Amino acid sequence: MEPATSASTASISATRLVVMVGTPEVDRPAYQWLSEAVRSLVADGRLLHGTRLPSERSMVAALGLSRTTVTRAYAELRDRGYATARQGSGTIAVLPGGPAAGGAEPVPMGVPGSAPAGAIDWRSAAPPAVAGLTSAYARAGEHIGRFVSGMGYFPVGIPEIREAVAQRYTERGLATSPDQIIVTTGATEGTAAAAQVLLGRGSRVIAETPAYPNSLVTLRREVSRVVPVPITWDGSDVGAWESATVGSGARAAFLTPDFHNPTGALLDAERRDQLAALWRRHKLTGLVDETLAELVIDDLTMPAPMAAFATSAVTVGSVSKMLWGGLRVAWIRAPRNLIGPLTQARMSIGLGGPVMEQMVAADLIRRGVGSDNERRDSLRSRRRVVMDGIHEALPDWTTVAPPGGLWLWWRLPVPRSTALVRAAREEGLLMLPGSTFAVAESGLEHWVRTPFALPEADLTEAVVRLARAWARVT
Amino acid sequence: MEPATSASTASISATRLVVMVGTPEVDRPAYQWLSEAVRSLVADGRLLHGTRLPSERSMVAALGLSRTTVTRAYAELRDRGYATARQGSGTIAVLPGGPAAGGAEPVPMGVPGSAPAGAIDWRSAAPPAVAGLTSAYARAGEHIGRFVSGMGYFPVGIPEIREAVAQRYTERGLATSPDQIIVTTGATEGTAAAAQVLLGRGSRVIAETPAYPNSLVTLRREVSRVVPVPITWDGSDVGAWESATVGSGARAAFLTPDFHNPTGALLDAERRDQLAALWRRHKLTGLVDETLAELVIDDLTMPAPMAAFATSAVTVGSVSKMLWGGLRVAWIRAPRNLIGPLTQARMSIGLGGPVMEQMVAADLIRRGVGSDNERRDSLRSRRRVVMDGIHEALPDWTTVAPPGGLWLWWRLPVPRSTALVRAAREEGLLMLPGSTFAVAESGLEHWVRTPFALPEADLTEAVVRLARAWARVT
Repeated sequence: MEPATSASTASISATRLVVMVGTPEVDRPAYQWLSEAVRSLVADGRLLHGTRLPSERSMVAALGLSRTTVTRAYAELRDRGYATARQGSGTIAVLPGGPAAGGAEPVPMGVPGSAPAGAIDWRSAAPPAVAGLTSAYARAGEHIGRFVSGMGYFPVGIPEIREAVAQRYTERGLATSPDQIIVTTGATEGTAAAAQVLLGRGSRVIAETPAYPNSLVTLRREVSRVVPVPITWDGSDVGAWESATVGSGARAAFLTPDFHNPTGALLDAERRDQLAALWRRHKLTGLVDETLAELVIDDLTMPAPMAAFATSAVTVGSVSKMLWGGLRVAWIRAPRNLIGPLTQARMSIGLGGPVMEQMVAADLIRRGVGSDNERRDSLRSRRRVVMDGIHEALPDWTTVAPPGGLWLWWRLPVPRSTALVRAAREEGLLMLPGSTFAVAESGLEHWVRTPFALPEADLTEAVVRLARAWARVT
Repeated sequence: MEPATSASTASISATRLVVMVGTPEVDRPAYQWLSEAVRSLVADGRLLHGTRLPSERSMVAALGLSRTTVTRAYAELRDRGYATARQGSGTIAVLPGGPAAGGAEPVPMGVPGSAPAGAIDWRSAAPPAVAGLTSAYARAGEHIGRFVSGMGYFPVGIPEIREAVAQRYTERGLATSPDQIIVTTGATEGTAAAAQVLLGRGSRVIAETPAYPNSLVTLRREVSRVVPVPITWDGSDVGAWESATVGSGARAAFLTPDFHNPTGALLDAERRDQLAALWRRHKLTGLVDETLAELVIDDLTMPAPMAAFATSAVTVGSVSKMLWGGLRVAWIRAPRNLIGPLTQARMSIGLGGPVMEQMVAADLIRRGVGSDNERRDSLRSRRRVVMDGIHEALPDWTTVAPPGGLWLWWRLPVPRSTALVRAAREEGLLMLPGSTFAVAESGLEHWVRTPFALPEADLTEAVVRLARAWARVT
């Protein structure tokens, strides 16, 4: 599992590494501090597996610590499996065991296989873990002992996470108490439980098209028909909602108001109000997907959550895009009268998620991790790489920069989305055609989604391959 | 959250504590070793919150270490919040934050509320975490870094746990490869996914009665009718299965062959073979609940897993009873031709469980934790406390000692199960009436289940309260 070393091995300068490790701690030997700081950078994925570390000499100069300290720290890194020394290559940071393969967010046509060697996977759009995740795990590990003398079942979640999520809703403008929160293992489980309660078999649901395909799979299991409402970059039109609703017999409406997947649209407060009024008139319950809501990129005043307008709505939120998909922590927020039935539905498909991740997620939410400025700057910069890159390479493609979220939704000048995706695969770029997102499961040949969750170097290369693929198609 | 101290505070002798902490490690200061060993006992629940530690003087004598070492270790325990010193009471071991409330395995009539003060909860039957869980978490924490650069979604499970589970099936006599394992978040999720694939709406399923009520809730969501087959201590009768099957139109059979819940019955190899032949003749697929299979108590040769007899069967297993419910790691084992459809079904209700617990469970399964002799001795001893206690106090109640599992199933001399449960509540003992386990959701008034997963002192007291309750009823 050792990384290949070659002339092209990434490296980090002593100046940069010194900034990343911060300042020495006074209460223990400096070599221990340095070794642990570097280990934590590697474990957190901020210092990538295979990066060449600065020479000991340059670290001594940059840190202002003794040669002995740096030598001992590097030796300890090697002893613990976080570095290897190779003749002529210096010291290489490694992750013990190497990075794990796989882990992409699944798409409904099946679990994405591991991409062919060298391919860039643009089918999914979830970021890697936030910095600080491994230390949050370590902190939670210190407290897991509080739970081990019990059986470990918390079907609606441990108090800590219910409180943290309720508090965050309240901060966002929707007063919420912890007993309105049911923790689920991912948003899909929350959507499945909510669909059981709100929809009932053979009923109808109104949903935006395009939409997140995994949610459509879950909704289709419960209902006889999904009635589509079109949505583009600027959100769905209240008039279109009204036409779809009248005479549809639908009992519920599925909506992603905060950075819609895949259009990136943010529904403004005025339309939230109008939609809520429409739902009240037609006795529809809103089922609101808020999994992207914390991924704000632009400086803007966010409208209050949809359930502040439609008080009977059931909201599904998640830390998967905000902190890490591998935590599998999500929740349902609902009015109190629905908590009982939702708990029963949730228990028919699972008796609760693990305790540890709920502690980790509660800890990080309380610290504001995942919705901080650093995350925002990184998303803004990645969005720019994809947007500017495609505008330059493919000037007849059009889009509108989404104010948040993880993807751009492009309109192609000719309806060749499926052909493009086929050609892109030949170029080593895996994508989903527009039809994947269509409620009708076909059409949307004029559209394609480009995520911007990957590292910038990968995004730049993805744009190059995309342009080559488009040239083959047209 | 500090424990009350009183004359009745539990204490531990220096001799006993010295055995539990093991031998000093040579590569670091003895005080650090001692402090960490005690912390780990407290975190693992082996040294209970509120236990009075031996005096420093007696530890010095028992350990053969210096007074300074013991004093520093005790000071470090206090500094880290794992001990408090109180005038006249010595040093008390505490869990930082105190033990968490709740965590009982839920029962289908709702999430069990916290029991009234002083009540013993005999409604659920899951043990606390195995010893060694917190160190397994610490080991897994060292490796979580391998996963954080990916998105963290593993809808069928990470390779490590699929391999460990497949290996364990092979050891138990059922050759299995990792690609036949789909990891789920608890057995209920596995049962829900399997029910989607095997049953289909409006179909029928044959199931033993009594049965695990959470599974019945999940099955009822998919089928029009659950056709019952009676089962008692010695398992279900193949003739009864045949009568229930012929003309039922059922497509699947739900079975718990290894320490059935609640009867504790173990299905022998001969009947496994006969049942498998019956299923083949009638084109039934077996849905096998194996969540108790590793909880063997008596010295016996276990028959091979049911799927070794019925090769088309789908099996659901879990670590909840074997390691800890709070891990929420379970799996489906299926023939290869069903893995695709089962994966799709699993993804319609959730996109996978967290990475961390899969690492922890794989680690512990590979080490044989949870099916070891220590666990077996503890279960045997607890079974004896309940069995002998009830035989003595209520000589006209009858049972048969189950060869494994976590409960005894008693036949009452008169059909007063519901009345007994009501009276038991008055005595501070929470139980479930026999009807909870009935497929028909009523009846079984002659029966009651007594779990033996609790600490022995609680079990002894539970039997006293049970006898008092029965006296009120008769």
